[in-house]
Amino acid sequence: MTAPIAERFSEIRRAFHRCPEPAWREFRTTGLLVEEIRSIGVDELAVGAEAYDPDDRMAVPDDDELDRWLDWARADGVDGELLDAMAGGTTGAVAVIERGDGPSVGLRVDIDGLFVEESTADDHAPAAEGFRSEHDGTMHACGHDAHMTVGLGVLEAIEKSDFPGTFTAFFQPAEEESGGGKPMAESRFAADLDYLLAVHVGLDHPTGEVVAGIRKPLAMSHLTVEFTGTSAHAGKEPNAGDNAVQALAAAIQNAYAVPRHEAGMTRVNVGRVEAGAASNVIAERAALAGEVRGETTALREYAKAELERTVRAAAEMHGCDADFRIVSESPRADSDEALVALVSDVAAGVDGVDSVVPWADFGASEDATFLMRRVQENGGEAAYLVVGTDHPGSHHTPRFDVDERSIPVGVDVLTETVLRIADERP
Amino acid sequence: MTAPIAERFSEIRRAFHRCPEPAWREFRTTGLLVEEIRSIGVDELAVGAEAYDPDDRMAVPDDDELDRWLDWARADGVDGELLDAMAGGTTGAVAVIERGDGPSVGLRVDIDGLFVEESTADDHAPAAEGFRSEHDGTMHACGHDAHMTVGLGVLEAIEKSDFPGTFTAFFQPAEEESGGGKPMAESRFAADLDYLLAVHVGLDHPTGEVVAGIRKPLAMSHLTVEFTGTSAHAGKEPNAGDNAVQALAAAIQNAYAVPRHEAGMTRVNVGRVEAGAASNVIAERAALAGEVRGETTALREYAKAELERTVRAAAEMHGCDADFRIVSESPRADSDEALVALVSDVAAGVDGVDSVVPWADFGASEDATFLMRRVQENGGEAAYLVVGTDHPGSHHTPRFDVDERSIPVGVDVLTETVLRIADERP
Amino acid sequence: MTAPIAERFSEIRRAFHRCPEPAWREFRTTGLLVEEIRSIGVDELAVGAEAYDPDDRMAVPDDDELDRWLDWARADGVDGELLDAMAGGTTGAVAVIERGDGPSVGLRVDIDGLFVEESTADDHAPAAEGFRSEHDGTMHACGHDAHMTVGLGVLEAIEKSDFPGTFTAFFQPAEEESGGGKPMAESRFAADLDYLLAVHVGLDHPTGEVVAGIRKPLAMSHLTVEFTGTSAHAGKEPNAGDNAVQALAAAIQNAYAVPRHEAGMTRVNVGRVEAGAASNVIAERAALAGEVRGETTALREYAKAELERTVRAAAEMHGCDADFRIVSESPRADSDEALVALVSDVAAGVDGVDSVVPWADFGASEDATFLMRRVQENGGEAAYLVVGTDHPGSHHTPRFDVDERSIPVGVDVLTETVLRIADERP
Amino acid sequence: MTAPIAERFSEIRRAFHRCPEPAWREFRTTGLLVEEIRSIGVDELAVGAEAYDPDDRMAVPDDDELDRWLDWARADGVDGELLDAMAGGTTGAVAVIERGDGPSVGLRVDIDGLFVEESTADDHAPAAEGFRSEHDGTMHACGHDAHMTVGLGVLEAIEKSDFPGTFTAFFQPAEEESGGGKPMAESRFAADLDYLLAVHVGLDHPTGEVVAGIRKPLAMSHLTVEFTGTSAHAGKEPNAGDNAVQALAAAIQNAYAVPRHEAGMTRVNVGRVEAGAASNVIAERAALAGEVRGETTALREYAKAELERTVRAAAEMHGCDADFRIVSESPRADSDEALVALVSDVAAGVDGVDSVVPWADFGASEDATFLMRRVQENGGEAAYLVVGTDHPGSHHTPRFDVDERSIPVGVDVLTETVLRIADERP
Repeated sequence: MTAPIAERFSEIRRAFHRCPEPAWREFRTTGLLVEEIRSIGVDELAVGAEAYDPDDRMAVPDDDELDRWLDWARADGVDGELLDAMAGGTTGAVAVIERGDGPSVGLRVDIDGLFVEESTADDHAPAAEGFRSEHDGTMHACGHDAHMTVGLGVLEAIEKSDFPGTFTAFFQPAEEESGGGKPMAESRFAADLDYLLAVHVGLDHPTGEVVAGIRKPLAMSHLTVEFTGTSAHAGKEPNAGDNAVQALAAAIQNAYAVPRHEAGMTRVNVGRVEAGAASNVIAERAALAGEVRGETTALREYAKAELERTVRAAAEMHGCDADFRIVSESPRADSDEALVALVSDVAAGVDGVDSVVPWADFGASEDATFLMRRVQENGGEAAYLVVGTDHPGSHHTPRFDVDERSIPVGVDVLTETVLRIADERP
Repeated sequence: MTAPIAERFSEIRRAFHRCPEPAWREFRTTGLLVEEIRSIGVDELAVGAEAYDPDDRMAVPDDDELDRWLDWARADGVDGELLDAMAGGTTGAVAVIERGDGPSVGLRVDIDGLFVEESTADDHAPAAEGFRSEHDGTMHACGHDAHMTVGLGVLEAIEKSDFPGTFTAFFQPAEEESGGGKPMAESRFAADLDYLLAVHVGLDHPTGEVVAGIRKPLAMSHLTVEFTGTSAHAGKEPNAGDNAVQALAAAIQNAYAVPRHEAGMTRVNVGRVEAGAASNVIAERAALAGEVRGETTALREYAKAELERTVRAAAEMHGCDADFRIVSESPRADSDEALVALVSDVAAGVDGVDSVVPWADFGASEDATFLMRRVQENGGEAAYLVVGTDHPGSHHTPRFDVDERSIPVGVDVLTETVLRIADERP
Repeated sequence: MTAPIAERFSEIRRAFHRCPEPAWREFRTTGLLVEEIRSIGVDELAVGAEAYDPDDRMAVPDDDELDRWLDWARADGVDGELLDAMAGGTTGAVAVIERGDGPSVGLRVDIDGLFVEESTADDHAPAAEGFRSEHDGTMHACGHDAHMTVGLGVLEAIEKSDFPGTFTAFFQPAEEESGGGKPMAESRFAADLDYLLAVHVGLDHPTGEVVAGIRKPLAMSHLTVEFTGTSAHAGKEPNAGDNAVQALAAAIQNAYAVPRHEAGMTRVNVGRVEAGAASNVIAERAALAGEVRGETTALREYAKAELERTVRAAAEMHGCDADFRIVSESPRADSDEALVALVSDVAAGVDGVDSVVPWADFGASEDATFLMRRVQENGGEAAYLVVGTDHPGSHHTPRFDVDERSIPVGVDVLTETVLRIADERP
Repeated sequence: MTAPIAERFSEIRRAFHRCPEPAWREFRTTGLLVEEIRSIGVDELAVGAEAYDPDDRMAVPDDDELDRWLDWARADGVDGELLDAMAGGTTGAVAVIERGDGPSVGLRVDIDGLFVEESTADDHAPAAEGFRSEHDGTMHACGHDAHMTVGLGVLEAIEKSDFPGTFTAFFQPAEEESGGGKPMAESRFAADLDYLLAVHVGLDHPTGEVVAGIRKPLAMSHLTVEFTGTSAHAGKEPNAGDNAVQALAAAIQNAYAVPRHEAGMTRVNVGRVEAGAASNVIAERAALAGEVRGETTALREYAKAELERTVRAAAEMHGCDADFRIVSESPRADSDEALVALVSDVAAGVDGVDSVVPWADFGASEDATFLMRRVQENGGEAAYLVVGTDHPGSHHTPRFDVDERSIPVGVDVLTETVLRIADERP
């Protein structure tokens, strides 16, 4: 019989750390999760297409890419039936403990890894202690390995408690691509939640510090544009081309010049471009990957509309077509004051917590906001909290690591919050 | 009784030099021309709307501007009836000598001045010798004063000769704006010409040199664009504006990047811009004046179409409207080989001619090409010739001047050419 | 003997309204002010160069422009000695009441008009009631006529009161150009202030509403850039030019694309451009007038530095020189909480005040911030308050007008605040 | 014993066609050439570093790439000693027949293939008849397989003739990258040539047509630019980045706007770009591959200098560094009139020639110009001729093919020209 999760936090987290799988490729990760959830014993466990509508997913890679990762998972011994349930990249799982007459509380943790090559340095603990990524070029460089471990820890603790309501743990794929929050939020599991908790480790907060509530995550859209023109020999007949590189350059210059908005912060970025074939050919194809963000969802929509107009006019200016596509999006959603006050109060009493920060702003984006908004729109409350962890490198860099002492802290703060909700806000 | 023109070249040229009048404002100039033509005695003299259809004119200034110049001419003693004939800026004249049974030969000279402030330097002959421009800010800085004198000289000489055909002298306004060539070419006077001669002095050819034929004048379009957007306070609500300055900048950057053409030379220029009102206001209006040119008329049309598309897309990109207007245009037309050979042969025998250049290329534009093409399309021949003149400053600069010794040279080459045409190509 | 100001608010305000004078041209306005201040009787009255160091002024127009306005004032009967004191455009005045042993309180009001053509509509009160601007093309379209009236009203009221300290009224020129705040702040009159009050009418707050304190005026810089290249014939030798229009366009496109800043709002605008001479000439000169703003002075400095680098590189890119000049600037300064609380409390008790808004954000810029910062740096406190007024048109538009009922409200709120300061914070 | 080349044109050409090898990778190709040259028997055969100074090469790929192709050649059975002579990608060969007392005549043919995927269509002869490229993604799509065959044919014919002088055949690598012309031209083999002939098949001239002389090949430079800035999180701190994508866009927009030149045609193209890593990161790296061309070498230098200035300023504008590198270049060189007249005369008498075009313009670039200029600078003469061939697809496209009947035509025209040179211009 397996030892309780609470005794295996480090072991579990390291198992996840070894197999970072990017968005919608979390086959082996889901396998590990399912194994642990089964060992806990829950009332309902839904995997993949049982957990959400696959059509609600965003930023899904193509089949070749998915198959490559599926094969790796299969070779690694993940159960075939389980893999079948994840066909087409329907990864992730939802676990439910249903006790009847109490509040319905959700906890969302994210499970995907990143395309970052992990450090091999001697002073990088995963390398030194043998749990570095086993898949070159990918890494759990944002702490989702710890998030999953915390999620399992809370699930086990609630299962063992006398919590009287419904507790639902969302193990959400594709957070880094803002691809998995929406299907989870649209699912039946999110329909009747009274409370939603989401958690992140680190974010420059040290071990022992807890931020009870996050404010102002930016609404965000990832997008791609493909310009299609006409190629021509650049020496012999430059006039015969419709130059996709010129369309691209006009689009970029004017994209960054989308006007600032009186109502608050906006962001526009063209982060990646690729165009053309050879120096002596007028390019017939140019592609960019970019994003827009806004301090509110409306501001993101403003920036998106301006950008789309800019891109379409740039294409037209140079006789090209533009295919403007939204890859994925997330709205803004803030934590609720009453719930944050409760978390704050709980955290102050948890062992290992030295400092409680009631509120912090968040300069980036998060698709937990889909779930938060779903709950808030139903009249419920949400809180996104941060469990501090000493991390040697920044998030998304090769030397990122988490201080495993923060895992039980996260489990305790969240478990205690769920129980206090049941006690005080039934 | 007035002395023959041939004895008064310098006096006449200087009278013209004193009153430079830009496009469609050549009221006093036309007055002087009419006086001289009447003294010669011709079979038909048509002024203004009698000479061409005013609606064919291009680049006509507004009424206020015309009235200002009309008043100046009136104050200067130009005959009131004549001024009435030029109401609305229908300046210029056509004079015809009709003898009956011979070839119909046309000679076109241009009559307008430039908005250039003439030099007051002691070594600038017009200043030193008292015939500098009497109208500040304008100048005969391209030699049209000499052209008119040559035209009158030829008219007198043909009148006195036994030339047996029809000789038509076109005193064309608005060459500098490419505005007067078209109405002259569309007029009944150009309908039946067998030959067309046009002449320019200088162009870096010294006194004593004659170029018998010009090749490759660029086809050209002058144009204006006005962008209209929406103003807004740049600090309080930049998003509320539709920024005409941004549209203008996008248009300019991409205008110069219109692709080169395999078939030959093109040109694009934005020579003047003006936009906005105050530093703290998003500009609602921006205007540009520009031009396109091409080695052929088709190449100009290519550049014009590309530019228009660019401008419209730039407007759309920034939520503005664009009003794209052609101000005036001239086509390309080359001199004909046979006629150039004749001119070349004639010139070699003219007193004062040291050197005859059979052909030269022309890097700029000229709206004599309208008349040349009209004649060529009717099966006739045309030649555009250059009568060299030592000029201290470049054309269109404050110290430009002509060497008056080149005037009789021009008269003789042209007169002799007309007579030889009648002799040899009846 | 003149009636008290308090009985002539409307008459005085309308006198100012009739003679709107833009930045550093407030000769007649200063004349009217001096007359009224003398009628009140103060301990010190400093005009022009007595009031501040003329070298600290910014955005001073050229001598021709100043002389034009000076002549108008002279023709209008302004005292010659007074005009001499304002030679070179040293307009404005400072009036001091000195009682000895109490706090030193300053009040700043601005006095300049705008280049806006005032409405002649029947329902525009100044037109209908005969006090429309007497100087075509300029207008008191921002309420500075009311500000001056309020300033005189407070000065009279303090003079008549038993206020024990020093009261200094700054009648500051050139607020609209951010040109006059700095010299006032640098002057000896601002050296020992304990408190500074500044006031604005309207700003979309209705008559009867008072905003006790303004937060977040944007730090701002007005600037100009002149690009100098080389002209050339656009048809004959485009390569011979160094195109200032291209430099301008590259600068504009990239200016608007200066990156947003994590620390808060920035603004960049190119509000006015002018370049080139003729459509067929490569432009040798291009000029722009623009501005940068920031939520803090540091953010403005960031935007300014980025813009300057952009402009210099754009010039270099096209072989041009760039002359980048700051015309005028103002820093950010916020109202102080304690003083705002006092204003808030006072306002609530003033006759005619229906509603007190403790704080409001300010989306634009103001050079009262120079005085506020001077006081704050000396350990004093400042408050910028808004006295609501129903205004039919927006500020800076032809139909702007103030509801004169707001003038006594402003006088009472400010007078009472000054007296309470003396009572409570001696 | 091997059959004479003249009997094996098709077989030899098809052997070359099967193994297209791009620039500096022509290991197997050189192997085949050496084998044939040895079978002919020449006075000197220099391979690789014996033939030229490797440091004069341009556009040499990196070692990994070279090794990949070297291994392929080795596996294919190319002689190891020969491969050693080509270490580091010193491919190509020079063969000399030295008879003593006659003119020194050179013939240059190029030997490299292209990165084009050859058609597999049934009506594409190489596919149908079994000699399609054996190396996926590369193809002899420009006829260099025929050029080499012609070169070998002429070498054999001269060897068998009584030609009295020195005949040197240059089998030049890397023409498509303009990388091999320069080392050949700088070599000792080119030092004393009196005549240089170069040949191309096709170029839209049909089988049976010969163009005796090419005029106006464009001078050309291939170049790359790499922009290096600073990456930053696009949402959290866009200001912390130095955006290489913005630098790239500014460079592109202004690159295409490099002014046209009065002296003739120029070209600028940015054919390939690649930048950045992820949509949410300010890009720290951007790269472009481009080219400039000019109707003369001076015009190319003009465009290159303008482009470099543009690129450097664009980098500076966005706080980036720019690494501007010339990859390879070729000058302009025209055929000489006297030699072209001779070729023209010879061609008219050759069997299979239906039509002789004395001169044609060439809208693209060619690095044979290095050899032509070397010879011309030494007082010799050069001619670049075209041997027409029916080609179903355009040059550089998957369905290009040559009509093998044109091979003996090329051999005869060239051989006869060499012999006539010896006869007539000793």
